[in-house]
Amino acid sequence: MDNQLESVRETLLMGPGPSSVFTEVYQALARPTIGHLDPKFIEIMDGIKTFLQQILRTRNRLTIPISGTGSAGMETSFVNLVETGDDVLILINGVFGKRMQDVASRLGARVDALEFEWGKPVDPDQVKKQLAKKRYKLVAIVHAETSTGVRNPVGEVADLLKDNDALFLVDTVTSLGGIPVEADLWQADAIYSGTQKCLSCPPGLAPLTFSEKAVQKTLQRKTKVPNWYLDLTMIVNYWEGSKRAYHHTAPINMLYGLYQSLFNILTEGLENVFARHRECHLALVASLESSGLEMLVEPEFRLPMLNSVKIPAGVDEAKVRQKLLDDYRIEIGSGLGPLAGKIWRIGVMGHTARLENIKRFTDALNQILS
Amino acid sequence: MDNQLESVRETLLMGPGPSSVFTEVYQALARPTIGHLDPKFIEIMDGIKTFLQQILRTRNRLTIPISGTGSAGMETSFVNLVETGDDVLILINGVFGKRMQDVASRLGARVDALEFEWGKPVDPDQVKKQLAKKRYKLVAIVHAETSTGVRNPVGEVADLLKDNDALFLVDTVTSLGGIPVEADLWQADAIYSGTQKCLSCPPGLAPLTFSEKAVQKTLQRKTKVPNWYLDLTMIVNYWEGSKRAYHHTAPINMLYGLYQSLFNILTEGLENVFARHRECHLALVASLESSGLEMLVEPEFRLPMLNSVKIPAGVDEAKVRQKLLDDYRIEIGSGLGPLAGKIWRIGVMGHTARLENIKRFTDALNQILS
Repeated sequence: MDNQLESVRETLLMGPGPSSVFTEVYQALARPTIGHLDPKFIEIMDGIKTFLQQILRTRNRLTIPISGTGSAGMETSFVNLVETGDDVLILINGVFGKRMQDVASRLGARVDALEFEWGKPVDPDQVKKQLAKKRYKLVAIVHAETSTGVRNPVGEVADLLKDNDALFLVDTVTSLGGIPVEADLWQADAIYSGTQKCLSCPPGLAPLTFSEKAVQKTLQRKTKVPNWYLDLTMIVNYWEGSKRAYHHTAPINMLYGLYQSLFNILTEGLENVFARHRECHLALVASLESSGLEMLVEPEFRLPMLNSVKIPAGVDEAKVRQKLLDDYRIEIGSGLGPLAGKIWRIGVMGHTARLENIKRFTDALNQILS
Repeated sequence: MDNQLESVRETLLMGPGPSSVFTEVYQALARPTIGHLDPKFIEIMDGIKTFLQQILRTRNRLTIPISGTGSAGMETSFVNLVETGDDVLILINGVFGKRMQDVASRLGARVDALEFEWGKPVDPDQVKKQLAKKRYKLVAIVHAETSTGVRNPVGEVADLLKDNDALFLVDTVTSLGGIPVEADLWQADAIYSGTQKCLSCPPGLAPLTFSEKAVQKTLQRKTKVPNWYLDLTMIVNYWEGSKRAYHHTAPINMLYGLYQSLFNILTEGLENVFARHRECHLALVASLESSGLEMLVEPEFRLPMLNSVKIPAGVDEAKVRQKLLDDYRIEIGSGLGPLAGKIWRIGVMGHTARLENIKRFTDALNQILS
């Protein structure tokens, strides 16, 4: 019997995620599995909570990783915070805003969607007008729209909500660890992320933080959370307190990986990590533009970690990606939805954000396009 | 900053899970992360599906791992198969039967629970009587009750359901890879498991198989699956067909681990693996009984991989477990619910099922108890 794993080759991951993984994270994944109630493991869990609080810039007690990928973070947030009939406002300018709409609708929320052109940011003025029209139980926005490369003005939207009863939910799957995420400053009530973007850990966990207001909302629900696996009122009893109660078996080795990735980032220093992302982003854009390529998003709203570039006329975009992967072992992403066939998405996330990687990629692209 | 991971020590995992992990699985976890749509990764996914079909003994096309722990497998099964108002029968003789009741109730099912004493098997005669009284949409049972060490007579219950319209759901979290699981022979409609028991992979994934009848039920729902993350009608589009559609980012490295663990098991041969579990179980029981200890479960219904032994009078059970962990680096489990303080649960799962491990544990236990 052939073992397919033996032919897995190192790849430079410059797509929309997963990103290239820190060497030390691979080592962490391979550390001996111990029990999920072992006192040593509880120490590691406590370390992860503290690290996550630092990287999310929050003092929220409920700051933990959820045992699923980033989308499980989205599901957890909505299923705990929303009850049937709740009015919810979702700000949409890409795939992940649309996904929020679907998730919330399935849970019986009455969803209003405020939609903006893909590739453009959410407009706070329109949000303000909508908030004046109707009272919402929850307002949700995506910080870094992975499908377009747009950074939404979360700080400005946050300001609109500071005198509003609505819970404020922010998707930071792609932003966390690449640009500042300010949970407490924004007074965000729920934030979730994923491990496979700027944290440079393989996919599989969803960091999440809930404010005290969000925790209270969950505790005062009229009905039980209609999802046993993601019910935070039970999960916290495993992650908090002096007596840890078994809920589901924690994904031990993935949590080792997350611990290590947060350790790496905090050791380097958040500001240094952000600067490294920015430097690589600017180098990438300069190189692409000098090759005659055009960016999709206006400079002010560009994400450093997700760069959408328009595909030049006459170029077979899939063939270029194929060649990059086959001949150069570099992965980049295609466009989604209305942007399919129109853009490439080039990730500069976490460990991938190194100038030598930018050069390796732009050299390869130039060779293919020449 | 101290790195807590550096003091993680190898532990002999003889609790109710996780079990000790195959060396090759650790190596697999540390292989380079590649993209979730990389053709190489699709090959690995196809390999996992084929391996799972072999180990579950099924030709079901929908045979995949879910991106969460074993409990996510339970959640996936119920949330896809059950709609509000559906009559469901759950056969309960331990924690995991109770959990099924909770999961199904939260989803709006009308749940009848047929309860049996913890430590005793489900009685097919009582099931037969209940099935004669009422028509159910779904009947669920736990094959290996991890909380008690009881093997439920799934084959006999399966026979009762062969002329019944009800879907038949079986939890094989602890049994899969340790005793025969016969998806097709049982005509089971849904089976889920976990990676951290007899598969000897870290926790984090839930192997799952759905029969064609179960797939049709899911496709013909009146309402969307009220859980975006676990909606199989979408997930299959990533796992099947010529064009793989992105749903959520697959947990790449965990899937490497699962591939490798299934590879190990199938290379050793399922029958050999079962025999190894049985041999170790018999050696363990013989040793425990020769030390004057008594098993909770009658021989006929004992699970080889989960051995419940009564705590001798006057023994501080928590202190014994503590000493095993601190002085011998061996983990065993405590009792749950009505069995808390009354039993220890000794796992002999997967890679842990080696005679040298049985000896190491029984020697340690005898030293502590003497």
